[in-house]
Amino acid sequence: MLETLRRQSTADYQRADAAHHLHPFTDYKSLKAEGSRVMVRGEGVWLWDFDGKKYLDGMAGLWCSQIGHGRREIADAVHRQMCELEFYNTFFKTTHPGAVELAEQLAMMTPEGLNHVFFTGSGSEANDTVYRLVRHYWALMGRPEKKVIIGRRLGYHGSTVAASAMGGMGGMHTQGGMLPDVHHIEPPYWFDLGGDMSKEEFGKKAAIWLAEAIAEIGEENVAAFIAEPIQGAGGVIIPPDTYWPEVKKILAGKDILFVADEVISGFGRTGEWFASDHYGLKPDLMPIAKGLSSGYLPIGGVMVSDKVADVVAEGGEFFHGFTYSAHPASCAAALANLKIMREERVVERVKEDIGPYLQERWRALGEHPLVGEARMLGLVGALELVPAKPGRSERFANTGEVGTLCRDISFGNGLIMRAVRDGMIIAPPLVISHDEVDQLVALARKTLDDTLAELRRRGLMG
Amino acid sequence: MLETLRRQSTADYQRADAAHHLHPFTDYKSLKAEGSRVMVRGEGVWLWDFDGKKYLDGMAGLWCSQIGHGRREIADAVHRQMCELEFYNTFFKTTHPGAVELAEQLAMMTPEGLNHVFFTGSGSEANDTVYRLVRHYWALMGRPEKKVIIGRRLGYHGSTVAASAMGGMGGMHTQGGMLPDVHHIEPPYWFDLGGDMSKEEFGKKAAIWLAEAIAEIGEENVAAFIAEPIQGAGGVIIPPDTYWPEVKKILAGKDILFVADEVISGFGRTGEWFASDHYGLKPDLMPIAKGLSSGYLPIGGVMVSDKVADVVAEGGEFFHGFTYSAHPASCAAALANLKIMREERVVERVKEDIGPYLQERWRALGEHPLVGEARMLGLVGALELVPAKPGRSERFANTGEVGTLCRDISFGNGLIMRAVRDGMIIAPPLVISHDEVDQLVALARKTLDDTLAELRRRGLMG
Repeated sequence: MLETLRRQSTADYQRADAAHHLHPFTDYKSLKAEGSRVMVRGEGVWLWDFDGKKYLDGMAGLWCSQIGHGRREIADAVHRQMCELEFYNTFFKTTHPGAVELAEQLAMMTPEGLNHVFFTGSGSEANDTVYRLVRHYWALMGRPEKKVIIGRRLGYHGSTVAASAMGGMGGMHTQGGMLPDVHHIEPPYWFDLGGDMSKEEFGKKAAIWLAEAIAEIGEENVAAFIAEPIQGAGGVIIPPDTYWPEVKKILAGKDILFVADEVISGFGRTGEWFASDHYGLKPDLMPIAKGLSSGYLPIGGVMVSDKVADVVAEGGEFFHGFTYSAHPASCAAALANLKIMREERVVERVKEDIGPYLQERWRALGEHPLVGEARMLGLVGALELVPAKPGRSERFANTGEVGTLCRDISFGNGLIMRAVRDGMIIAPPLVISHDEVDQLVALARKTLDDTLAELRRRGLMG
Repeated sequence: MLETLRRQSTADYQRADAAHHLHPFTDYKSLKAEGSRVMVRGEGVWLWDFDGKKYLDGMAGLWCSQIGHGRREIADAVHRQMCELEFYNTFFKTTHPGAVELAEQLAMMTPEGLNHVFFTGSGSEANDTVYRLVRHYWALMGRPEKKVIIGRRLGYHGSTVAASAMGGMGGMHTQGGMLPDVHHIEPPYWFDLGGDMSKEEFGKKAAIWLAEAIAEIGEENVAAFIAEPIQGAGGVIIPPDTYWPEVKKILAGKDILFVADEVISGFGRTGEWFASDHYGLKPDLMPIAKGLSSGYLPIGGVMVSDKVADVVAEGGEFFHGFTYSAHPASCAAALANLKIMREERVVERVKEDIGPYLQERWRALGEHPLVGEARMLGLVGALELVPAKPGRSERFANTGEVGTLCRDISFGNGLIMRAVRDGMIIAPPLVISHDEVDQLVALARKTLDDTLAELRRRGLMG
C-alpha cells in the first residue's frame, strides 16, 4: 500500500488539503467549504476516489492520458531509468541516451521541417519558450521591431505570464498574466459568433480577422501568430473547414512566424499524430506536452523548424532553459508511451474506428432539449447547453452557472466532463473501448436529463 | 539494459543529438562542433558517461541531488505510485493523498507563517507564479498601482519570461526575458563590488541600495523584493553577515512583500532546512524546487504565507495553475526524498560534520596562486580565479575565458565544477562522504594547477 494512504477518511484528507494546498484554478474559499475529491487509483479510462466511487475519466486526466491510466510498462520503464540515471542536466554540453532518442523520434514524427526540439517540463514552459524564441529569432534577423504576437480570445497556451498573455483568457490577464505587445483577435467560434452566416462563410470571415489585425498593426511589427489548431480550454472550438485554408493563404509569403500549439491537439487526439497533419499546417514552432508522455511524468517541448533553428544556431548562446529540460525519467516515460501508441496503433484506431464510433453517438446528443450543438473531431468534443432550441439564438443568463451545475451532476453520475462557460467538454483516453464509449454516452445523456430536471425544478427552463 | 542504450558509440549519440536536440543555455554551433558528453549512469556523488569515464558530480546534478544519485528507494516509491495512480490533476476540486501529505509536510518544515503551497513543475514555474501572486495580491488589496518588483543584478529566478525578468542576467533580458515594472539593484557581492570597504561595511551599503531603490520608486509603487538568500547561478554570492539583518530592518513596517527564492538554497544546502532559517528571514512567499525531490522527478512550488493566502482565499478563483501541479509521481518522489533526508539526518550532517569538513579544505584552496577568494556556506561554494594576488585588484581581461577553460579541465579531470564568469562553483550532493570530499578537493587542486600551467603556456599569467 502507498505510504500516503494512511489517513482514515476523505474528511481527514479534506481538512489537511484545505489547510495547506492551494490548488490550480480554484476558488479557495468555496473549495474549503465543499472539500476536495480524493482520487487514489486509475486504470484505463477509470478512476477511483478514496471512498471507492468509480469515475469514467472523460477528460483523460487533463487532456493527456492518451493510453489511459495505470499502464505498468510506463512505470517499469521509468523505474529502470531511475535506477540507472535518475537525473542529470542537459546544460554544459551534456546529453543522455533518452534525450537523444526522444529528440530523434520527435523530429521524425512531427510535421515536415520540424527537426529540432527544445525540451521543457510542461506546456506552459513550452509556450513561454515560444515567446522567448520568437523575440530572439527576430532580433537575430535584425528586425527587433517585430515584437507583436497575435493570439486569439479564448486561446489557451498555459499559465506562466507570457503563456497567459498570448492566450486569450480575460480572467488570467487581470491576475498578472498580461504583457505589452500581445494582440488578440476573435476565435473561429461559429456557434457563438457566427450569426446568420453559414459555417463556411464564417470560417473565412474569422480568418480575415487575422488579415485585418496584421494590416492594422503593420506586418513589419508582427512577430508571430500563435493558435491552437482546435481551441481546447476555450471550449473545444473546432474551426469551420474554411478557416485554416484561409489562414494559410493570409500568412503565405508574409514574414510572420506561425506557431501551432499542439499541447492538447497533438499525439493522436484528432485521429492524426498532430492536428497540423489533419489541417495541413506547416508551423515554424510547435509547442507539445501532455500526450507526449500521456501525462505519466511531466514533460513538454517546442518543436523548432529548420528555418528558426538555423538562425538561432548562428546567434551564440541561447540564454534559456530549465533544470528539468529533458529530464531522464520524463524522457523514459515519453519513449515508453510513444512505443505503446505505435505498437497498439492508438492513433490509427482513433481515425478509423473509435473516433467515428464516439462521434456518431456524441452528435446524437445534439437532439437533447438542453443541447444547442454537439461537436467532435477525433476524440475531443463539446456540447453547448442552451435554454431553448434551436440553440444559437438564446443563452443562459448567468454564464457558467448551468455548466458548473451540469459538471457537478456529471461527477455525481460517475462521468468526468469539464464545464467551459455553459458547455460541457470531453477528451477521453484514446484507448477507450466501444463498450466504454457506450457507457460514456449513456452517462452523458443521464447527466443532461438530470441537469434539465434540476433546471426545471429551479424554474430556469420551461 | 535500457532500451535507449542501443547506439554503438558516443559519436552516434552526438550526431543525433546535434541534429535534433536544442540544449538549454547552449551555443548550438559550438556544441555541434565539439559534441555532447553522454551521461548514462549515476550513483551517490558519481556519474559515468557512455565511454565509462567517471565524474565526481560537484554540482549535484544542477544544485538538486541532495541525497545523491541512484537511490533505489525513490525509484521504488515512484513505481508504487505510478502503478496506483500515475496522474490525475488537482484542478476542479480534486486532490490525491500524496499532494495532501506533501503540502502538510512542507507547511510544517518551512519557516513559520508559510503554511500553504502552490505546486508547480519547476523553480521557473514557481517564480513565475510569484509574479502572478504578487500582482493578484495587491490588486485584491485595492492597490493595483503597487506593481514594481525589485530584484537584483546576477539574481537568478528561472527562465520563463517573468522569472528571467525578475532575475538579473543581462543576456536573458535581451533575449525576450524582460518585463516592464521590474527594477534591479546591485547584489551584495563584496569580492566584486566591495572596493576598500570591509565585508561588514559593504554588507550594510548593499542593503541600503534596496532602501534607495524603494525611495526612488516610491513605496506606494513597490510590490515586492525578490532575492535568493545566497545568489546561486550568479556565482554563489554569499552576502556579508551584515546584509540580511540590514535588509530586514529596511523592509520592517513597509508594505512590500518579501520573496525568498529558496530553489537552490533550500532543503539543507546551507546546513539548515532553508537558508531563511540560517539568516532568520520571514518571507511572505518562498519558491522551492530542486532539493524538494533531489531532482529525481520535476516538482516545484511556492510556499505562501497566511498573510497572502488569506487575501487570495477571499478573492474568488485564482486563474492560475499547471496540468502537472502536484503530479502524483513527483509528489511520491518528493515524499520519499524528504523521508530519506529526515531519517539519515542529511541536513544536520551538513551543519555539524561534512559542511565544516569541506569548508575548511575548500578555503585552503584560497592559497592557490590562481584563487582570489575561496568561499563556502554549508555545501555551496565558489573560487574566484584571478591573474594576480591579492585577488581583488586585478581580473582576467576576457571575462569567462579562464572560467570556461578551468571548467573544461575540471571535467577532463573527472570533477564537475561549473564556471560562472571567471569563478568556479560547487554544490555537491549533501551525502558526500569524507573520503569523497578529499577526492573532490584533490581534483579541484589538480584542476587549478593544470589551469595555471595552461595559462602560463598561453602567456596569460606570470
